[in-house]
Amino acid sequence: MTTTVGILGGGQLARMLALAGAPLGLRFLVMDSTADACAGQFAPMVVGDYRDETCLAEFARRVDLATFDFENVPAESAQWLADRIPVFPAPRALAVAQDRLAEKTLFRELGIGTPDFHAIASRADLDAALDAIGAPAILKTRRLGYDGKGQFRLRSHDDADAAWNDLGAQAPSVGLILESFVRFQRELSVVAVRSRSGEFRAWPLTQNWHRDGILAASLAPARVDAAIEAAALGAARRLADALDYVGVFALELFDCDGELLANEMAPRVHNSGHWTIEGSETSQFENHLRAVLGLPLGSTAARGVSCMLNWIGALPDALPVLAATGGHWHDYGKSPRDGRKVGHATFRADDGGTLATVLGTVGAALQREGQVTPVLARLEEAAS
Amino acid sequence: MTTTVGILGGGQLARMLALAGAPLGLRFLVMDSTADACAGQFAPMVVGDYRDETCLAEFARRVDLATFDFENVPAESAQWLADRIPVFPAPRALAVAQDRLAEKTLFRELGIGTPDFHAIASRADLDAALDAIGAPAILKTRRLGYDGKGQFRLRSHDDADAAWNDLGAQAPSVGLILESFVRFQRELSVVAVRSRSGEFRAWPLTQNWHRDGILAASLAPARVDAAIEAAALGAARRLADALDYVGVFALELFDCDGELLANEMAPRVHNSGHWTIEGSETSQFENHLRAVLGLPLGSTAARGVSCMLNWIGALPDALPVLAATGGHWHDYGKSPRDGRKVGHATFRADDGGTLATVLGTVGAALQREGQVTPVLARLEEAAS
Ligand SMILES: Nc1ncnc2c1ncn2[C@@H]1O[C@H](COP(=O)(O)OP(=O)(O)OP(=O)(O)O)[C@@H](O)[C@H]1O
Ligand SMILES: Nc1ncnc2c1ncn2[C@@H]1O[C@H](COP(=O)(O)OP(=O)(O)OP(=O)(O)O)[C@@H](O)[C@H]1O
Repeated sequence: MTTTVGILGGGQLARMLALAGAPLGLRFLVMDSTADACAGQFAPMVVGDYRDETCLAEFARRVDLATFDFENVPAESAQWLADRIPVFPAPRALAVAQDRLAEKTLFRELGIGTPDFHAIASRADLDAALDAIGAPAILKTRRLGYDGKGQFRLRSHDDADAAWNDLGAQAPSVGLILESFVRFQRELSVVAVRSRSGEFRAWPLTQNWHRDGILAASLAPARVDAAIEAAALGAARRLADALDYVGVFALELFDCDGELLANEMAPRVHNSGHWTIEGSETSQFENHLRAVLGLPLGSTAARGVSCMLNWIGALPDALPVLAATGGHWHDYGKSPRDGRKVGHATFRADDGGTLATVLGTVGAALQREGQVTPVLARLEEAAS
Repeated sequence: MTTTVGILGGGQLARMLALAGAPLGLRFLVMDSTADACAGQFAPMVVGDYRDETCLAEFARRVDLATFDFENVPAESAQWLADRIPVFPAPRALAVAQDRLAEKTLFRELGIGTPDFHAIASRADLDAALDAIGAPAILKTRRLGYDGKGQFRLRSHDDADAAWNDLGAQAPSVGLILESFVRFQRELSVVAVRSRSGEFRAWPLTQNWHRDGILAASLAPARVDAAIEAAALGAARRLADALDYVGVFALELFDCDGELLANEMAPRVHNSGHWTIEGSETSQFENHLRAVLGLPLGSTAARGVSCMLNWIGALPDALPVLAATGGHWHDYGKSPRDGRKVGHATFRADDGGTLATVLGTVGAALQREGQVTPVLARLEEAAS
């Protein structure tokens, strides 16, 4: 009778899925290549490589269905599993989202704007694409990039040598794509969910700030015009329907003076949706599980205004966060390491003014003014 | 560096504590006498009797501090542990709360009203106490009662034989107490928390409805006058300070035309505080952990209005709950058994009218009209 959900990848997303799934009466089994993956602190694990069919077979035998914490699970492993047990999202949706070229091509087909882009197979391709797109531009690996890794920014055509030196060797293996570098006003994301029966819901838009290619802060609901909100949600819905997507996903968007350009889709619960744990009626983690289990989706309405701050590398002092009204602490149980996401905090308040006061206090106490200043500026702008 | 919290008792309270503690970066170890205790699905366990010193020693060795899911842990076991590791609440507070006579005596000393009561050691005591208090009255075991077990209601003096037949044999072991049977308008509870540093916070009052001595439904914040709220919170605070109590506790009160009579104190997170998971800024589970760890307490402010329905014996169909806006499902992962608490649902809404509509729909869908009707009546009364 009890349903066991298998999760490929045992990081903080798997951990938060398991914590959200316990009240639904679910059991979990996590598969990860490292034994100390942090989800293992609250769920049983199978330790092994995703390409190891013995491990995959054990995993498949012990679960009723599978989903992902890690979007870069090899497509063949996902397919191998999908031939045996239900897998959500389906391998095809995963494959599209894993490949920046396939993803942006689909965006275009669906009438979703994107930065100009060209597939790059050779140094000659790069020169031609630079001529076509113009500088500044950004060269990215098509596959296996995350947190800004596998990217090279070109200010002018003169940077082509350096970019090719850095990433050219990866052209035959993971592929490359050149994108025009967009001068956006801000970054937004839609976090949305589609269920097995095609029911679709989206949380209010989130505004995001990155630092060194890694998400640093999110504010939700983003202070945007209704037209932008509608355009973003419409794009997310078309995308989900086109892929027959099941589960939570995020669509990252650049807002260029009201024109939205899609950057990428994450085929899983997303860092920019962590605020939903406290800031919305139903968290992205619970709704992902509801979706993949074919249960009714929960309300995605926001409760007040929330700001999420990511903790990268090491955790700051928890006390100022815990002492703040509406401050919520999330320690992923990981050991510190440069560039690693080790936790986050969410600050929830009934209105933007209260949130700004709390953020100002906590930012000062933690000497994290740099991380909160853009959020404070945005809250002030929206209030005036 | 990582703190491991030990929990004596592995039921749903321990389970919800562990789920709430994960984001704080805590690890847990649960001790229970049965291997399939439901907290064991999300936390490692030591299986053994609380009186088994080998097990207790292993437990003590593996944790940094200990707390309780189960209030009837033998006082000597609690003391044995407290001699070795920090234990919250302290054995003395636990001992008082375990004994209805000590508890009611303390209430009196603190100026907290209670139903009239007499200690009963013999059949002759029972007759004398019935003469003094008058009927109706209620004979209870002093220790080890829960969910209305170990109680006998006497409508008149004629029921004395039956009451003594039922409970008299327990007089030498657990002790007995006779209380006057109170004709209350309603039952209320204060769920409150006091930290190691003496910081005190209380959630808004909760109104509770029992069926066969077991909690059936809670509504929070209770619709009460400010004077009643203040009196209840004042009583809770005096009690907590007097016991130097650390952690969450509940004080159950009878409201008799505005006069509050204390029924009992539960020295742990409490069923009438389950609504705080979704209905308040910080849940009772998180604040209990913050308190015992000496961390700042989180806000106990309510978010809208919540109703909790208990699932006793077996779970009803989850779908109507999941389909309801603001409906939250809690399956404890237990097998069904008569009279057993196997789960609950919380319904959260921004206002009482919306909550009433949701409850009406769900009550009808689950054929649980009996469980929701008193809550609906109260919401209607408060609205008019
Ligand atoms: N074409 C572009 N124009 C301008 N800025 C860009 C562009 N592409 C990426 N960036 C910046 O770099 C950040 C990270 O880029 P991208 O999302 O492609 O990388 P990623 O490694 O997949 O990151 P994530 O972990 O967020 O998925 C973006 O959020 C944005 O700030
Ligand atoms: N003196 C009393 N007068 C009227 N009703 C009473 C009295 N004592 C108990 N009751 C009723 O019985 C219910 C359960 O009683 P009590 O709380 O003493 O039992 P318990 O077994 O300790 O329950 P719990 O599991 O809630 O702690 C009360 O909530 C109330 O409805």
